[in-house]
Amino acid sequence: MSLVVVGSMAFDALETPFGKTDKIVGGAATYISLSSSYFVKPVNVVSVVGGDFDQDHIALMHKRDISTEGVQVKENEKSFFWSGRYFNDMNSRETLATELNVLGDFDPIIPESYQGCEYLMLGNLAPQVQRTVIERLNERPKLVVMDTMNFWMDIALDELKETMAMVDVLSINDEEARQLSGDYSLVKAAKKIMAMGPKFLIIKKGEHGALLFNEDKVFFAPALPLEEVFDPTGAGDTFAGGFIGYLASCNDTSFESMKRAVIYGSAMASFCVEKFGTERLKNLTKEEIENRVQQFVNLVQFDTVLQ
Amino acid sequence: MSLVVVGSMAFDALETPFGKTDKIVGGAATYISLSSSYFVKPVNVVSVVGGDFDQDHIALMHKRDISTEGVQVKENEKSFFWSGRYFNDMNSRETLATELNVLGDFDPIIPESYQGCEYLMLGNLAPQVQRTVIERLNERPKLVVMDTMNFWMDIALDELKETMAMVDVLSINDEEARQLSGDYSLVKAAKKIMAMGPKFLIIKKGEHGALLFNEDKVFFAPALPLEEVFDPTGAGDTFAGGFIGYLASCNDTSFESMKRAVIYGSAMASFCVEKFGTERLKNLTKEEIENRVQQFVNLVQFDTVLQ
Repeated sequence: MSLVVVGSMAFDALETPFGKTDKIVGGAATYISLSSSYFVKPVNVVSVVGGDFDQDHIALMHKRDISTEGVQVKENEKSFFWSGRYFNDMNSRETLATELNVLGDFDPIIPESYQGCEYLMLGNLAPQVQRTVIERLNERPKLVVMDTMNFWMDIALDELKETMAMVDVLSINDEEARQLSGDYSLVKAAKKIMAMGPKFLIIKKGEHGALLFNEDKVFFAPALPLEEVFDPTGAGDTFAGGFIGYLASCNDTSFESMKRAVIYGSAMASFCVEKFGTERLKNLTKEEIENRVQQFVNLVQFDTVLQ
Repeated sequence: MSLVVVGSMAFDALETPFGKTDKIVGGAATYISLSSSYFVKPVNVVSVVGGDFDQDHIALMHKRDISTEGVQVKENEKSFFWSGRYFNDMNSRETLATELNVLGDFDPIIPESYQGCEYLMLGNLAPQVQRTVIERLNERPKLVVMDTMNFWMDIALDELKETMAMVDVLSINDEEARQLSGDYSLVKAAKKIMAMGPKFLIIKKGEHGALLFNEDKVFFAPALPLEEVFDPTGAGDTFAGGFIGYLASCNDTSFESMKRAVIYGSAMASFCVEKFGTERLKNLTKEEIENRVQQFVNLVQFDTVLQ
């Protein structure tokens, strides 16, 4: 099934306890499209970059059957840039620099070849831009998944709520769920947030896994216990890419299918954090992915013979 | 199979965001024995109380086939007392008062009727006291499970390591595992801690579940997402009681059996936090427990048909 991915394509400069990078390729659409490309082809990206963007990376995307027809190139401008430093626990970070550049006035263009897509992944962006993308599709996709962050809750809550009401699945982290709902209990938070529109809610808890809510049902996927989390940048986007990629590949949006999609998303995220940036996502094999999924099965599976 | 439980029997005064209590019955052995009594009978307790201890609670223990023959009563002294306040997130708390009282010079006595027990649960106590209990048993039990806390890592690390080397299973929380090992990664921490003696390690992560390690194997049990955690006091001890109670009931100490035991322990803990103190543990039915275990199955179970 056809998939459209919207989000930033950017440069990141990262510092973790394990080292630091110069400007490397990052951005939500970068991670989402790479991750989903292991499940569905083509992946159609809507984004914007400056003339400084890395052409080798564009070539890698094409090699993985990721279409960049919807990626605007503003030759005389610079790509979005983010710089951040992670603390020892890898769960907290500080932003050192944010330069919006081309993202400041991003007006998304949907190529004709993307029309009719059945799966739409709205990566983290201004909610009014996410909404514009939905409105510029001639037909409403079968499934719309939206990622966002606390920043938009702080400065654009009304627009965020308007866009949220138009999507099927919302993906946020635990702190964002608490902020958006005003409830500490994630079970209560989930009820309030689903009442705002999305029928499905994913709450990401980083190293503590992810919860999937739908009506009164809840599913939990752990994160894989790893020796080292080398660089958590992009883990949430990689999760989202695996999640929607899996759903698009089997074209089944039932709760049972979404459970498996959460596991595939978690498996993809567990690769992402093993190296800096997108490094680990460039060359995975189908076998590596299936083995990783099997590790999730082994991690939580127990014989349910009761006494 | 016969089970001996060692630990404090105490009074607690608690403050949570939902209210506060006067002195209510608490203590590690209290929670462990109540929890394990749903799996195995009798549960044989080794502890010490003052003349002020609650006789109704002793009667409740007897009603649940919990033997108090090994509970010393020091008529002219006072029972151990702890007072604490939980913060909004329920994961952090501050101690308002600790009065050791009878626990200050606790010299455990093992009644003749307890000798030959096959399962031993060492609840949180001074590690030299835990060690004394092992030494006073004529035969080494089939399985010794030990709980401890950061307090002993701070003031009695050598004694703690000596006792740890004598047990099969160690149960601690994530922060304690990091402190004991000096590693932030729980996977690395687990390897170091198992090298200190225990073949099995349980790392409790509160609302984020629990990990069970053995050699290169790892199992994860989530905590049940609850609308409210009313009072987390005793959750870890209740977990331990369900864990060892389940193992004693089926007399199987394999890794597969321990996985199920972690789920039963988690189920028991999920009841504990629903009300203040031991309230919710006094009158559970077998059906309630099995239904709760089924909720854990539903929470993590997914159809593993791969693509």
